[in-house]
Amino acid sequence: MIQEFLPALEAEIKQQSLGDSPQELYDPIRYLMQLGGKRIRPVLCLLSYSLFKADWKKVVPTALSIEIFHNFTLMHDDIMDKAPLRRGKQTVHEKWNDNIAILSGDVMLVNAYQYLNQCQHLSLGEYQHLITRFNRTAAEVCEGQQMDMNFESRSTVTVDEYIEMIRLKTSVLIGLSMEMGGILAGVDTAKAKILYEIGECIGLGFQLKDDLLDVYGDPEKFGKQVGGDILANKKTYLLIRALETAQGEALDTLNHWLAANNPNPVEKVAAITQLYTDLGIRNETEAKINQYFDQAFQAIDQLNLQTAQQEALGKFLAGLVDREV
Amino acid sequence: MIQEFLPALEAEIKQQSLGDSPQELYDPIRYLMQLGGKRIRPVLCLLSYSLFKADWKKVVPTALSIEIFHNFTLMHDDIMDKAPLRRGKQTVHEKWNDNIAILSGDVMLVNAYQYLNQCQHLSLGEYQHLITRFNRTAAEVCEGQQMDMNFESRSTVTVDEYIEMIRLKTSVLIGLSMEMGGILAGVDTAKAKILYEIGECIGLGFQLKDDLLDVYGDPEKFGKQVGGDILANKKTYLLIRALETAQGEALDTLNHWLAANNPNPVEKVAAITQLYTDLGIRNETEAKINQYFDQAFQAIDQLNLQTAQQEALGKFLAGLVDREV
Repeated sequence: MIQEFLPALEAEIKQQSLGDSPQELYDPIRYLMQLGGKRIRPVLCLLSYSLFKADWKKVVPTALSIEIFHNFTLMHDDIMDKAPLRRGKQTVHEKWNDNIAILSGDVMLVNAYQYLNQCQHLSLGEYQHLITRFNRTAAEVCEGQQMDMNFESRSTVTVDEYIEMIRLKTSVLIGLSMEMGGILAGVDTAKAKILYEIGECIGLGFQLKDDLLDVYGDPEKFGKQVGGDILANKKTYLLIRALETAQGEALDTLNHWLAANNPNPVEKVAAITQLYTDLGIRNETEAKINQYFDQAFQAIDQLNLQTAQQEALGKFLAGLVDREV
Repeated sequence: MIQEFLPALEAEIKQQSLGDSPQELYDPIRYLMQLGGKRIRPVLCLLSYSLFKADWKKVVPTALSIEIFHNFTLMHDDIMDKAPLRRGKQTVHEKWNDNIAILSGDVMLVNAYQYLNQCQHLSLGEYQHLITRFNRTAAEVCEGQQMDMNFESRSTVTVDEYIEMIRLKTSVLIGLSMEMGGILAGVDTAKAKILYEIGECIGLGFQLKDDLLDVYGDPEKFGKQVGGDILANKKTYLLIRALETAQGEALDTLNHWLAANNPNPVEKVAAITQLYTDLGIRNETEAKINQYFDQAFQAIDQLNLQTAQQEALGKFLAGLVDREV
C-alpha cells in the first residue's frame, strides 16, 4: 500500500488544477512542483491516515495541499536566500525573476488552500479545526524562516534558539502532515497530538542529521558539497555547540578559521571537522539525533496500533531515519 | 446601521489576532492594517449581508478577512512596483526590507484564511463554496497584477485587455465582498451572482474613475499628484483610447510627448490633457464609467429588496460613485 502513495501523488501533481493565464504566473508552479523530491510530507499524511482507515485514495488531494504549501515556502525562501539552485535546477526567481517568484508563490499558497478544500467527509467543526491547525503551522513555518534570517546577522545563537528555529522552519510541517492524516481519519485529540509529536521529532532529528551529514557525509552519496556549512560559517547545531564547548587553544583555532579571510577551503573544512570530532560534537550530535528518533518511536507505541500498521509505520520511519543523503 | 460597520471593523482590526514573535514578521502587518483606508470591501460585505439579515455583528471577523487579503496584496504589490509610499507613509519594504515584506505578506495571507475560518453558521458545503469563491478570486487578483506588470513592457495594449486587467486586479474582489455578504446570509445562487455583479461593476467604474481623476481631478481634493499617470506614460484607459483614436497631427503630438526625453512636466501634462479633451476621450471615459455604474444600479433592482434595504444600498453606492478623491 505505502508504495502506492507516491505514484498516486505524482499522478495528482501531473493534473494539478491551476489557471492557464497569464503563463508567467502558473508555469513556475508547474516547474517547481515537477522538479521532484521525495514528497515526504504528503506520503506521511497518507501513511498516517492509512493507520486508521483503508480508503486513503480519497484524501490524496487533501494530502497534496501540504506538498503545495511546502513548495510555496521553497519558492519564496529561495528569493530571500538568493539561492541559485533548487534540486540541481535553476530556482524560480533565477529562471524568471523576483516579482514572478513572489506572485507565483502567492497563487501557489492559494492553490494549497483549494486542495485542502477538497476534503469533503468531515463535519464543519472538524474541517475548521483542520484549517486552524494548517494556518497555525503555516504561520510557524514563516516564523522559523524569519528567525533563520535574523540569526544570520547575530553574533551568537544559543542551542535552544537554534532548536526552536529548526522546529518551526521544518519540523512543525512534518508534524502537521502526520496529524492531518489522523484528523482526516477522525482520530481523537490525544491520538492527533501523538501523531504530531512523531512527525515533529522525526523532523528535528532529520534537520540535525542534515547538519551532521554536511560535515561527515559520504561525498559519493551526499547530494551537496560536504563542508558547505563550514565554509559559509553557517550557525548549525555543530558550530553552535563547538562555540559553547571549545576553550583555550581549540577556541582560538575555531575563531581563527571563522574570521579567516579567503581561507583555503580544503584546509578550513578539515580543520573545523577535526575540531568538531575532538570536542566530541560529532558524538553529541549523533546522540541528540537518536534521542529525537527514539522519542518518535516511543510515541508510536502510545498509538496502540494493530501489529501490521505499527510495523508499516515503524519500517517507513526507520527508512527515513537511516538515510545517508 | 451602516455607520456602525466601520467602527466595528476598526475595533476588530485593533485587536487583530496575530503571533508575537519574531517582531519583524508581525509588526509590518499591524503597521499596514492601521494605516487606515476606507475599508470599502468589508463594509460592502457587511452591507450586503445586512440586506438579508439583521445580525451583521457576527460576520465582522469573516468580513475582515477580505480587508486583510486586500492589504496583503498591497504589501506584495508595493515590493513589485518598488512603491516608496502607501497612503502617504513608507511602504513595508521601504520601512523594513523586501524579505520582510515578502514573508510578512505570506503570514498575512494565512491570517486572512484564519479570519475566514471564524465563520461558524454555515454548513460544510456552504463554507467550502465560500472558500472556493475566495480562492478563485484571490488567484484572479494575482492574475490581474501579473497582467499589469506584463503591460508595462508591451508596446500596445487593447481596451479589452485593459478592462480585463482592471477587472481582475480590482473589481473581482469588490464583487466577492458583495457576494460573500450574500453567501453568509444564505441567499441563493442567483442572488449571489447579482451581488457579485453589483460589486464588479462598481469596481470597474471606480478604477476608470481613478484614471479619469488622475487627469481631470481637482488638485485641491485629489490625494495624488494630478497628471501622475501622464508623466509616467502609464497605459490607462485614457491613453489606450487616445492611441486608438488619434490620427494625423494629434497622433504625432501624442507620440512626441510619449517619446520626449526629460520633458517639462507641466507642459506635458497640459498638452496630453488637452489632447484627451479634444479627442473626446474625457467624455467617452465618463460615459463608460456611468455605463458600469448604471449596470450596478440596474442589478440592484433585480434583488427584489425591501424598500429600506434598497435605499440603503443605493445611497451607499451613490456615495462611492460620486467621490472626487
